[in-house]
Amino acid sequence: MPLFITFEGGEGSGKSTQAGLLTRRLEAQGVSVLLTCEPGGTELGDRISNLLKWGDGISISPIAELMLFNASRAELVSRVIKPALAAGKTVVSDRFADSSLVYQGYGRELSLASVRAASSIAAQGLIPDITFLLDVPTEHGFARKGSAKTDRIEREHADFHRRVRDGYLAAARAEPDRWVIINGTLPEATVAGRIWQAVQARLSQRTG
Amino acid sequence: MPLFITFEGGEGSGKSTQAGLLTRRLEAQGVSVLLTCEPGGTELGDRISNLLKWGDGISISPIAELMLFNASRAELVSRVIKPALAAGKTVVSDRFADSSLVYQGYGRELSLASVRAASSIAAQGLIPDITFLLDVPTEHGFARKGSAKTDRIEREHADFHRRVRDGYLAAARAEPDRWVIINGTLPEATVAGRIWQAVQARLSQRTG
Repeated sequence: MPLFITFEGGEGSGKSTQAGLLTRRLEAQGVSVLLTCEPGGTELGDRISNLLKWGDGISISPIAELMLFNASRAELVSRVIKPALAAGKTVVSDRFADSSLVYQGYGRELSLASVRAASSIAAQGLIPDITFLLDVPTEHGFARKGSAKTDRIEREHADFHRRVRDGYLAAARAEPDRWVIINGTLPEATVAGRIWQAVQARLSQRTG
Repeated sequence: MPLFITFEGGEGSGKSTQAGLLTRRLEAQGVSVLLTCEPGGTELGDRISNLLKWGDGISISPIAELMLFNASRAELVSRVIKPALAAGKTVVSDRFADSSLVYQGYGRELSLASVRAASSIAAQGLIPDITFLLDVPTEHGFARKGSAKTDRIEREHADFHRRVRDGYLAAARAEPDRWVIINGTLPEATVAGRIWQAVQARLSQRTG
């Protein structure tokens, strides 16, 4: 099986940039890669993402939000990620089930057991081989986002984003074999270098 | 706590008609009633319902479908059903969590344990006091629907609808204290009379 690599972190942590850099670097080595992101990545997922991010004025209770992220995830796993892995492609995803654990579990303070149960049904047994946590202090992430338009979740208060950051660190420390924590405030090239090293190490473990 | 009454059954079983009749009969007795239906009943739920029923050409995998119904359900429970019950209103719902068990579990053949887990998170501990199953042979239900435009789920093949009918009967037989099975091919007034009798019996148990 090829690798399934995910990127996690708060707003403005540089996840999307690093997921793109890793994808291009793997491709330059001749690796066939699929880059995707959550929520979205399918027609259904894009519609759900639009509702979750920009459905202003529509009430979305925390459990409904959890189910919507998992509807998008289930579609992405069924139609995109599983077929790509089965075809031998490495998959890089900007966010996956850990985002629900952290945003809906720690952030919205839903029961972690409920969040895990719902996400595990949607993920259909799929667990990332490596998950990169790009850890940045909450204030730093928002400063980096700058004046870009903020969506419904980004607009949550500072306490929410602090719980998200702490939740990510707790999740990463609970599964040290899967997670790699990287200081996201380091220069982009330094972060990219550490990610590349970790991926190379994992690949050599597999083939070695 | 006032009663939470749900109606279940296949297409064209007369659920919506009977839910409306029961609501009006309770109201005529001075009972404060909220009538609702799934999927829908909230702004979010209506958007999801529209996607599930009429989102033609959009792929919705079975687990994504399960999550979407549960997103609609979670919003309805949080914003409508729980507040109404807390305010002392009797709630009558045209479909609830049993619909997911039967349509996504038996119909789509997802694991019943997964369907139960997801629906129980969305239902937030809420279980109907009485559930009426209006049982009709599959062919009869479709004949009754007549030439009305059929949605994505109604268009499923006959085997799907047969599994739904059998699933309903299995669910009802597994919890005989909650379910009341009524032959939905009987005249409307006869069905309404049996429903009214069962509701009266339940109310007198409560007060007696």
